[in-house]
Amino acid sequence: MVNIIKIGGNIIDDPLKLDQFLKDFAHIEDRKILIHGGGKIATEVSKHLGIEAQMFEGKRITDAETLKVVTMVYAGLINKNIVARLQSLDCNALGLTGADLKLITGKQRKSDEIDWGFVGDVTENSVETDALKTLLDLKINPVFCALTHNGLGQLLNTNADAIAYCLAASLAKKGITVRLIYCFEKKGVMYDVNDPNSVISSINSTLYTELKSKGIIHSGMIPKLDNAFKALQTGVSEVKICMAEDLHTVETAGTTLTLH
Amino acid sequence: MVNIIKIGGNIIDDPLKLDQFLKDFAHIEDRKILIHGGGKIATEVSKHLGIEAQMFEGKRITDAETLKVVTMVYAGLINKNIVARLQSLDCNALGLTGADLKLITGKQRKSDEIDWGFVGDVTENSVETDALKTLLDLKINPVFCALTHNGLGQLLNTNADAIAYCLAASLAKKGITVRLIYCFEKKGVMYDVNDPNSVISSINSTLYTELKSKGIIHSGMIPKLDNAFKALQTGVSEVKICMAEDLHTVETAGTTLTLH
Repeated sequence: MVNIIKIGGNIIDDPLKLDQFLKDFAHIEDRKILIHGGGKIATEVSKHLGIEAQMFEGKRITDAETLKVVTMVYAGLINKNIVARLQSLDCNALGLTGADLKLITGKQRKSDEIDWGFVGDVTENSVETDALKTLLDLKINPVFCALTHNGLGQLLNTNADAIAYCLAASLAKKGITVRLIYCFEKKGVMYDVNDPNSVISSINSTLYTELKSKGIIHSGMIPKLDNAFKALQTGVSEVKICMAEDLHTVETAGTTLTLH
Repeated sequence: MVNIIKIGGNIIDDPLKLDQFLKDFAHIEDRKILIHGGGKIATEVSKHLGIEAQMFEGKRITDAETLKVVTMVYAGLINKNIVARLQSLDCNALGLTGADLKLITGKQRKSDEIDWGFVGDVTENSVETDALKTLLDLKINPVFCALTHNGLGQLLNTNADAIAYCLAASLAKKGITVRLIYCFEKKGVMYDVNDPNSVISSINSTLYTELKSKGIIHSGMIPKLDNAFKALQTGVSEVKICMAEDLHTVETAGTTLTLH
């Protein structure tokens, strides 16, 4: 089995939590891939460099200067410090963007409404699955930051959840057993966000539709769960949504998504 | 044969020259490794972030804040843009620090005189040669920035010439034919730095000693040539010193160093 684990800014920004997470990640005996997003550091560096964040409908626009910052912070500072720490934990990590080994080729987002700049979108066909499989067969643990390229020399800022999805789906399509784990700041998908004991342990497609129609699952959770169900449909064996802090008990923690 | 090519700031800082160099690099049919240093960008980013460069005897001291900048600029911005460009030229590049795959473990520099901070030194024994060889056998072209790690989770700023030396020497010790090419801003080692036609086409150990004693080779050239002769002594087949712009005519360009 290949474990594909995505972590977000809430872990990246907390050195102690990140360190514990990396220990838990290193302990996983199966093959594994880590995908990390950014965090507050990118925003801080941008501020220092006098670059203002431009947003549209809650999403970041990536102009040329923002792409520079994102490349420095995601692919440099965050990625290589994670790799160095994992190596010290005897986990043979390799820090990657989608440009490395041409692993993930994104498509620059075009829209009539707005110029997104250097934002890339990916699908399950964006991945050089054979090259990825070669790394995994060599017992190498890929650590991806949220950058791809367009194949023409241009790096592209790409959503980390979407990268996790496309890696999982592409391996599943080759008949490889894949578990996709989305870590986020809550214990799982919850009936009541204010009640930490209300984690829904399992959600299938029917329940998902119901929870959406009742407004229990809404806003930011919808693209996350859409990605998860898309992954299941392409053959990913299991999708989990849980806290990074619960990775060591992932078998029982969080919310498990199933098709039926 | 494996070509190990080091480029410096004069190429990194010039987008047109860098692009032509990358085209020439991509055209090399043999196995190849690129090592790049920094450039003015690191200094500029440091300035914007309010970090002052601290030097001792012409060498940069790497405190924690400087290491962050170096990690962002070398491993992120410069390295990944080079990788994306090489991929667009059908050159299967993989961007690396010494921490990735534990390829190069440096030793933090200690001195009674001065605290160098996070500066690492390397020798021909610092390299995981088998892992490097695996990459080359897979027709992967490693692109190293000037960072190593100490094996305990700490990244270390490391001289790019020294990284090129240690990679070359470690492969040569395994019986692999290696050509080490140091690119710099001049056409080669020259009798008279003001006369571009005075390139010395070949220097052996005896001539090197003579040129040093006469003061024709001095200051910054000495560590470069010392590295070169050390490499020859460990079994590197050929060491060249030339301009990056002359890479396409490397057989005849620049200065060739030989032991005898």
